[in-house]
Amino acid sequence: MRLRGRKGIRENLEQQEDLVVLDPREYKGKWSQMFGNDRPLYIELGMGKGQFISGMSFKHPDCNFVGMDMYDELIRRGSEKVRNIWSGHEPENSHNVRLALGNIESIEEFFAPGEVERVYLNFSDPWPKKKHGRRRLTHPRFLDKYRTLLNEEGEIHFKTDSRELFEFSLNAFAANGLQMGSISLNLHGDGINEEHVMTEYESKFVGQGMPIYRCEVKVGE
Amino acid sequence: MRLRGRKGIRENLEQQEDLVVLDPREYKGKWSQMFGNDRPLYIELGMGKGQFISGMSFKHPDCNFVGMDMYDELIRRGSEKVRNIWSGHEPENSHNVRLALGNIESIEEFFAPGEVERVYLNFSDPWPKKKHGRRRLTHPRFLDKYRTLLNEEGEIHFKTDSRELFEFSLNAFAANGLQMGSISLNLHGDGINEEHVMTEYESKFVGQGMPIYRCEVKVGE
Repeated sequence: MRLRGRKGIRENLEQQEDLVVLDPREYKGKWSQMFGNDRPLYIELGMGKGQFISGMSFKHPDCNFVGMDMYDELIRRGSEKVRNIWSGHEPENSHNVRLALGNIESIEEFFAPGEVERVYLNFSDPWPKKKHGRRRLTHPRFLDKYRTLLNEEGEIHFKTDSRELFEFSLNAFAANGLQMGSISLNLHGDGINEEHVMTEYESKFVGQGMPIYRCEVKVGE
Repeated sequence: MRLRGRKGIRENLEQQEDLVVLDPREYKGKWSQMFGNDRPLYIELGMGKGQFISGMSFKHPDCNFVGMDMYDELIRRGSEKVRNIWSGHEPENSHNVRLALGNIESIEEFFAPGEVERVYLNFSDPWPKKKHGRRRLTHPRFLDKYRTLLNEEGEIHFKTDSRELFEFSLNAFAANGLQMGSISLNLHGDGINEEHVMTEYESKFVGQGMPIYRCEVKVGE
């Protein structure tokens, strides 16, 4: 998602030290310490405007969440979402969620091996041209990175509206010997599934009657 | 596929001993002997009107094929398809294809363990009601049967137009620890894929622009 820069955004983010992480390298291997507890760490790679990560953090106070994206403006919007959803229900200590600025290409610089329990990939860029296949977040080279970061309970939860990306991803998971489950080719086909927190894209696509594809992948070994 | 009986069909089948097998139990463990060679045995479970099995037998003379269905009339139509496609190109000895009458529920009575190298499931009845789930040909209880019949090179090649059946099947394959590959959520999306012999259903559905789902599953151990 490409967004035009706006003046003052970086300053805004710098003032949100309780929620925004501008250099996630600082916390590699120290996320539990930073959150101040040993709850499992769930991360969303490409959080977009933050509807999913904020909803999940509110719904699952027993887990820690990190939403990542590479644009200041998305982090800013996400921070508003988090504050809005928690408004009036402020946690006693700090939030169980952080929004981190960073490029997923470098994810191994942000999290230590085994530090993460779940990776969420929601409506990742499908990179439809074959020559860009390596950029898809379910490309085997990324799966290798996730495999390193995830602990023995580790899972990848993936959803997308792109049939092409889903097909590519199922084949990548299978070829890498990863155990799939809960495969859905039309997630909300029987009506909105309340169990799942929806992303902005998802709400829009489901409203248009388009199928959402989803699956879970066990990575822990 | 339910078809009205027609007089004389059984007599017709009885006269086609070179092509039609009315009691496949007779050949359990003896299919190679019957074909007179050791070519790999590929079987189609639910062959319908026989377009696929006849096309495959003609395209792959290096393999033996058995198409199964449970209705006399389908076997009769299939026999016409086989004779038509081979017309003018008769094989020197006998055909590399047989059409066998039988209920797939009893498949273990028709083939010996390890006797089959590939199972084709094409446009199987989706049995959409949950209570009929056990009848789907990709239900784990059938997968167990196929696993027994298939040799160490054994594969299941599955295609369907039913999103629901495909979803059910992917989950069944995954839950049974079977290695999937060549997963396609829109087989002919880039134009008719000439590599694949099409079934009657398939030609019709593709003509209507509907997606065809397909995958291959390695079963051999």
